[in-house]
Amino acid sequence: MITAIDVIRTKRDGGELTTEQIDWMIAHYTSGDVADEQMSALAMAIFLQGANAREIADWTAAMIASGVRLDLSGVGRPTSDKHSTGGVGDKITLPLAPLVAAFGVAVPQLSGRGLGHTGGTLDKLESIKDFNVHFSEEGIADQLRDIGAIVCAASKDLAPADRKLYALRDITGTVEAIPLIASSIMSKKIAEGTDSLVLDVKVGPGAFMKDLEQARELARTMVRLGSDHGVKTGALLTDMSIPLGRTVGNALEVRESIEVLAGGGPADVVELTVELAREMLAAAGQPDADPAAALQDGRAMDVWRRMVAAQGGDNDAPLPVAAETVEVKADKDGHIATMDAYAVGVAGWRLGAGRTRQGEPVQFGAGVEILKTVGEPVKAGETVFRLHTDTPERFEAAEESLRGQWTVGDAPVERGSLILDRITG
Amino acid sequence: MITAIDVIRTKRDGGELTTEQIDWMIAHYTSGDVADEQMSALAMAIFLQGANAREIADWTAAMIASGVRLDLSGVGRPTSDKHSTGGVGDKITLPLAPLVAAFGVAVPQLSGRGLGHTGGTLDKLESIKDFNVHFSEEGIADQLRDIGAIVCAASKDLAPADRKLYALRDITGTVEAIPLIASSIMSKKIAEGTDSLVLDVKVGPGAFMKDLEQARELARTMVRLGSDHGVKTGALLTDMSIPLGRTVGNALEVRESIEVLAGGGPADVVELTVELAREMLAAAGQPDADPAAALQDGRAMDVWRRMVAAQGGDNDAPLPVAAETVEVKADKDGHIATMDAYAVGVAGWRLGAGRTRQGEPVQFGAGVEILKTVGEPVKAGETVFRLHTDTPERFEAAEESLRGQWTVGDAPVERGSLILDRITG
Repeated sequence: MITAIDVIRTKRDGGELTTEQIDWMIAHYTSGDVADEQMSALAMAIFLQGANAREIADWTAAMIASGVRLDLSGVGRPTSDKHSTGGVGDKITLPLAPLVAAFGVAVPQLSGRGLGHTGGTLDKLESIKDFNVHFSEEGIADQLRDIGAIVCAASKDLAPADRKLYALRDITGTVEAIPLIASSIMSKKIAEGTDSLVLDVKVGPGAFMKDLEQARELARTMVRLGSDHGVKTGALLTDMSIPLGRTVGNALEVRESIEVLAGGGPADVVELTVELAREMLAAAGQPDADPAAALQDGRAMDVWRRMVAAQGGDNDAPLPVAAETVEVKADKDGHIATMDAYAVGVAGWRLGAGRTRQGEPVQFGAGVEILKTVGEPVKAGETVFRLHTDTPERFEAAEESLRGQWTVGDAPVERGSLILDRITG
Repeated sequence: MITAIDVIRTKRDGGELTTEQIDWMIAHYTSGDVADEQMSALAMAIFLQGANAREIADWTAAMIASGVRLDLSGVGRPTSDKHSTGGVGDKITLPLAPLVAAFGVAVPQLSGRGLGHTGGTLDKLESIKDFNVHFSEEGIADQLRDIGAIVCAASKDLAPADRKLYALRDITGTVEAIPLIASSIMSKKIAEGTDSLVLDVKVGPGAFMKDLEQARELARTMVRLGSDHGVKTGALLTDMSIPLGRTVGNALEVRESIEVLAGGGPADVVELTVELAREMLAAAGQPDADPAAALQDGRAMDVWRRMVAAQGGDNDAPLPVAAETVEVKADKDGHIATMDAYAVGVAGWRLGAGRTRQGEPVQFGAGVEILKTVGEPVKAGETVFRLHTDTPERFEAAEESLRGQWTVGDAPVERGSLILDRITG
């Protein structure tokens, strides 16, 4: 007879959980028969004792089996999706989904909300007036068939065990464990029904994975899980030591994404968007596609506007702007030498761009603009950050989180490629 | 600013918690601001990463500070208490409290209920008709002044943090960690207001501590905690490889305890009762007292009967008897060579003597009688165990738990002393 305490003790004492134990635990946790306190203790035991490839595969399969798996076969296009492990200023989904769809590939982006220092894609899109993120399975398939791209909330029926567990891990200090991250991401993405998947695994101080070797292990684990479930999966390991682009915050990031779709925008955001699009298109059978051209000639922007309209959003409404701004200035001449992504993420969060508890509203206009980023020259008195919020009492905490987290040096710093490594299935 | 997640992460990553972090965590857990899920994750992190002497001392102090500390200074006698870490057939509190009180020392035995394979002292006493275990602080002091012994439930105001945490650890596989066991026991015993304390730390397969070195560490940790808080504390390490005495179960153990108070009873129960009484009396200033004599001459029995009467119990009512019995017999001649205490404890629990969930009723008559114990000769067909229950469908599970857990050998086995070691403050 399997009991929750026996399962917890097995892992606590460094043992391997059987398939039956994992199936039982996930099923009973989903039904509420295993208490949150028990799953929390098990998550910490997994965090500290690890899990092997077989256990992670079983855990993922059990989470998929806790709900339904979408059937996108009626969409009539190959499907490809992207998942990022989350970084500061990571708005890539916004230009990427329409860009890939511009090549006739369907991109079913079932996304989440922000919690902690990284923002949520749905929160960003909801800063567009009337943008709707709630769709039925049929509505998702319809929009993918007609337009090729959708960015919406995952239904509650998709890996419900993961939904519960994710919220629990968030408050119990058990987020950053490879077995739990890998199974959480992959159970949702596999259940979503995509044919292929490209993972953007972030590395650096602003990401869950602080070093490259850890990130490689996570990427390999996820690629294997995808392949095991018939989803063609690959991964890019990308740098998250400094924020991506020049904005952190919901409407600020939408504005920057639209710049990219208009053929402009920051070089790093464009580079990563194009590289990920190339991977997705190759996985969908178009290895020679030229996504950079589709940003320049308006094809991607066209799909974006159709997608926003199809989701009820007003393409022409002005984006929300925060009521107050404060500028953080350089105190000497030189070049920006370092800028800690995590600190900038926390600053944006403290300004109101993110939430402290699930269900809290976010401020659409709040966030951080980065006027000078790493490698760029700056003069004493010039603005480096512009902070935005509707609640000016938050400025002090945001400034505090930036203090000492960026430096000005004498010599210019060369920025290398964002792409650190590539893992294929 | 202290947050639950930061505290959990610190311990998870092998760090040392500050006094402020521990105080904050216990206070906010007691008030409900720290969620059970969070405390559960922290308990598992402490289980796997450990805690140093300073952290354990702070944790204990914070649990004491979560409630009130009783003031027994008005009792007019020296106070001494005993705590056992819990073993199978451990009914020692019942003869011990009146025995020590017979020497003019007050014994404030604030006890708990059984959960899992070890029985609870309150459950045992409640098998006496009308026995009352609920007393106010004033009622406790009155009975200690008048009679010298009381065995009752701890008030909810005594270390409430421990009460919550104990229930949580029980369902999350985080019971057997020395920092958590030591702080749990000592916070309650220190808050209870006793001048001195003797710990009976059980060692062996029927106890939390499976080996002597572990048990020594637990004993030293607790002795130090007691001394730090001005409670004169010592410990005996005692053998729990086979059940104590010849009965496991509530009314069965009361009957055996009364035999001991009448000058009879099993040798091991008598030995341990006398040894612990000697320690308690020495701590209370009577190093030369002769507790064995007070069992023989009826002084201890006299205090027992007065204590039972003062607590509303009917000394003359017959004890509950289970409706059904089944006998487990030897299948060859020889001597009982081994008998696993844990297995016997589980058998008693399965027969209905214990509970699976807090608040469940227990069967007062249920349990196991041991007719032949380790070292004794037995013939094929003779009864070794007699199982008692009101619910005969439980017999099979109880017999199953005993199967293969006791053996008959050719040569007689010599049983050594129960007392394995002594730790002084």
